[in-house]
Amino acid sequence: MAEETQVTAETGGRAPSRRSLLGWGGAGLALGAAAAGGAVAAVRTGDQAVPAADSGAAIPFHGTHQAGIASAVQDRLHFAAFDVKTKDRAELVQLLKDWTRAAERMAAGHAVGEGAFGGLEEAPPDDTGEALGLKPSRLTLTIGFGPSLFAKGRFGLEGKRPGALLELPAFPGDNLDPARSGGDLCVQACADDPQVAVHAIRNLARIGFGKVAVRWSQLGFGKTSSTTPEAQTPRNMMGFKDGTRNIAGTDNAALDRHVWVASKDGAGWLAGGSYLVARRIRMNIETWDRTPLKEQEDIFGRDKGEGAPVGKAKERDEPFLKAMLPTAHVRLAHPDTNDGAKLLRRGYSFTDGTDGLGRLDAGLFFLAYQRDVRTGFIPVQNSLARADVLNEYIQHVGSALFAVPPGVRDKDDWWGRALFS
Amino acid sequence: MAEETQVTAETGGRAPSRRSLLGWGGAGLALGAAAAGGAVAAVRTGDQAVPAADSGAAIPFHGTHQAGIASAVQDRLHFAAFDVKTKDRAELVQLLKDWTRAAERMAAGHAVGEGAFGGLEEAPPDDTGEALGLKPSRLTLTIGFGPSLFAKGRFGLEGKRPGALLELPAFPGDNLDPARSGGDLCVQACADDPQVAVHAIRNLARIGFGKVAVRWSQLGFGKTSSTTPEAQTPRNMMGFKDGTRNIAGTDNAALDRHVWVASKDGAGWLAGGSYLVARRIRMNIETWDRTPLKEQEDIFGRDKGEGAPVGKAKERDEPFLKAMLPTAHVRLAHPDTNDGAKLLRRGYSFTDGTDGLGRLDAGLFFLAYQRDVRTGFIPVQNSLARADVLNEYIQHVGSALFAVPPGVRDKDDWWGRALFS
Ligand code: HEM
Ligand code: HEM
Repeated sequence: MAEETQVTAETGGRAPSRRSLLGWGGAGLALGAAAAGGAVAAVRTGDQAVPAADSGAAIPFHGTHQAGIASAVQDRLHFAAFDVKTKDRAELVQLLKDWTRAAERMAAGHAVGEGAFGGLEEAPPDDTGEALGLKPSRLTLTIGFGPSLFAKGRFGLEGKRPGALLELPAFPGDNLDPARSGGDLCVQACADDPQVAVHAIRNLARIGFGKVAVRWSQLGFGKTSSTTPEAQTPRNMMGFKDGTRNIAGTDNAALDRHVWVASKDGAGWLAGGSYLVARRIRMNIETWDRTPLKEQEDIFGRDKGEGAPVGKAKERDEPFLKAMLPTAHVRLAHPDTNDGAKLLRRGYSFTDGTDGLGRLDAGLFFLAYQRDVRTGFIPVQNSLARADVLNEYIQHVGSALFAVPPGVRDKDDWWGRALFS
Repeated sequence: MAEETQVTAETGGRAPSRRSLLGWGGAGLALGAAAAGGAVAAVRTGDQAVPAADSGAAIPFHGTHQAGIASAVQDRLHFAAFDVKTKDRAELVQLLKDWTRAAERMAAGHAVGEGAFGGLEEAPPDDTGEALGLKPSRLTLTIGFGPSLFAKGRFGLEGKRPGALLELPAFPGDNLDPARSGGDLCVQACADDPQVAVHAIRNLARIGFGKVAVRWSQLGFGKTSSTTPEAQTPRNMMGFKDGTRNIAGTDNAALDRHVWVASKDGAGWLAGGSYLVARRIRMNIETWDRTPLKEQEDIFGRDKGEGAPVGKAKERDEPFLKAMLPTAHVRLAHPDTNDGAKLLRRGYSFTDGTDGLGRLDAGLFFLAYQRDVRTGFIPVQNSLARADVLNEYIQHVGSALFAVPPGVRDKDDWWGRALFS
């Protein structure tokens, strides 16, 4: 606890660079708990939601909810889904504990392991080293558990599988690649420096060697959604502002209603957690780029420059759905069309080279958090898949669903404790 | 010329965000040519080499040499190789002119086309839009011409093919994928914001639609080499500092000797240009991560924390080659081992998902500029391929060579004018 106080005080206040050869410590940095609390508040976030002013700062790892959901969206993403290879429940539990300790250190801007390179010369280093000298960069690491982890005969978790952790239905137009879908576990690493996010996933994979294997992974070079209405809304690869009408990370009422799982929802271990839907959505950008401006704007129901809804002047003006085409994306995705369904979107643009046909393999890696997919992603995607004209320009090629446990409370807690206890 | 002066004055001085709906202009921004010259000097760079203080700033597009070589290395990369589809020389020339004008605008932080979204509603927009609102981000766009462009019966360029624009020899251990190798043209887009680099390549591909097709492309998330000795040396995916002993972008003597093609080298159209070798080098990072620290350090001939050569204390200390194993990477790559060969390295780390075997597809996208590959990359890579212990952990899976023409002088000049005139 004393150590934890120091970590947050230090990183919250000054955004130090990742300490390299020095182990953790330094009495000069020790602050009283009260002062530390103050420093934490500077980056800590309503419930982890207020944007950190400094993009090099650290986001506290511990809390009621996992960081990386309501947290202000960072610039870059590395997302990995893992298959669990071990059949031994105790080994899996130990891995989750080891991962938690490593995640704590990395989020605070430290190397994995106390020694960094100061340790045994004859052993592999505790940390792979490529993030030494880099700032914490608002790194968040968010774990999720896929439906397959709860299968009978694996880890004895079948009784704990929540009703909403189902296999997502097949939607019209889906063209899913099994090699980019599913996974027993996932870790979402978001940071303002991609090297920090890649380093984090790579070190978790290293720690898990022999027990888990990366099933698929996705780099996101640019955020496409905002959870901070006061910031400039980012643009997706279709050139439109994205995330205008998103759940704000500061809107605790909306978070409680639409994002966080409540105790009364069943599956007590998941209270304070959420569900994450990941969809790799390929865009046919070459066709899109030859589509007239007016048509592009009609497809979304917003104009391209300002992002204002049809018939309105400003991005933040309330959309008037009846002014839009019945097939407009915004109209179909709007809560009024879907029994009030709301998602917290947190997706990233990707570009993964070429597809062999002279076209960029680019699009949106869609990430959405919600309290229940049955009243969240599924109805919204049903509306979109049925009628959205956007479907002529996109294709869903990967899909996964994860139950995202609540936050790690302190240094004794670990990812999944309530599930495995 | 008056317009150009305004552009550089404006972007050099204030790093404006990409102007969106406003066309180019604004009399309030017009400065006298002298003042503009001063503003340019603030980011212009010896010969384009001094680091821009502000990572959001614009790097001048025009100059003796193309920007993106001696320029301070930016954080992110999008690299694309193109096949030329048109058989019509005039159409190719027109494309190169159109590309040049678009590149000028994008490097200055502007949208492609004067109108942006203000133009015809019934036409596709001139610019795809995803970089609107983003800063110039030190974007550089650097074009190169591959050996295949000079083939007989294509564009009548066979007589202009320089002697050094050969097919690279097969090196021991090469495992090249033709789909990630070669190309008639390449464009290297470097910027501090990846969305700006991706936007640039994507818009050039769009402008070239029907005339060229992307053959392969590569995103680099983190720079691995530095051309600015005073900055912190970046670390590659093996965790080592990379670029310590690189040619500095400010070292005009070394640039003239080892990087820029001279008039007397033959191929007059290439004087002031260079040769670019691109190699996609996959790392077996899982094996590397289980290698003891001492072994890792012996393989490079430098220590991991500080980056000091064997037996020395500091990163910048002169390497003493005989203290290193005969198989050490630094010893084998050193000019003393290779008849004085020196390269300007400008590579980036990549992570492209997974390889289907549970391993990250990650490594180094090696980029090196030189005056002649026969006295540059080829002898160095021959030494390395023969003896470097590093080869147990890496594999070259893609390869390409391009002749990189000199800089575009002004608004009347265009990429490749001397070659096609
Ligand atoms: C490549 C695919 C997609 C693109 C390019 C895209 C783009 C956009 C854009 C530009 C907006 C308007 C700005 C905003 O309020 O954020 C928007 C709104 C929205 N989108 Fe998407 N979207 C895509 C896929 C999806 C999917 C798969 C879902 C969920 C199943 C979804 C759900 C929503 C929702 C809920 C809204 C807000 C509607 C409102 O309340 O006004 N989108 N999207
Ligand atoms: C994944 C592959 C590679 C890795 C991880 C790697 C890494 C390194 C490192 C850590 C250094 C020492 C720091 C420095 O001076 O930059 C270095 C030096 C160097 N490398 Fe590499 N390198 C790789 C491939 C290559 C290749 C393919 C070439 C050229 C054929 C090359 C040429 C050089 C040169 C010329 C030096 C400087 C030697 C000196 O003057 O001391 N490297 N490399």
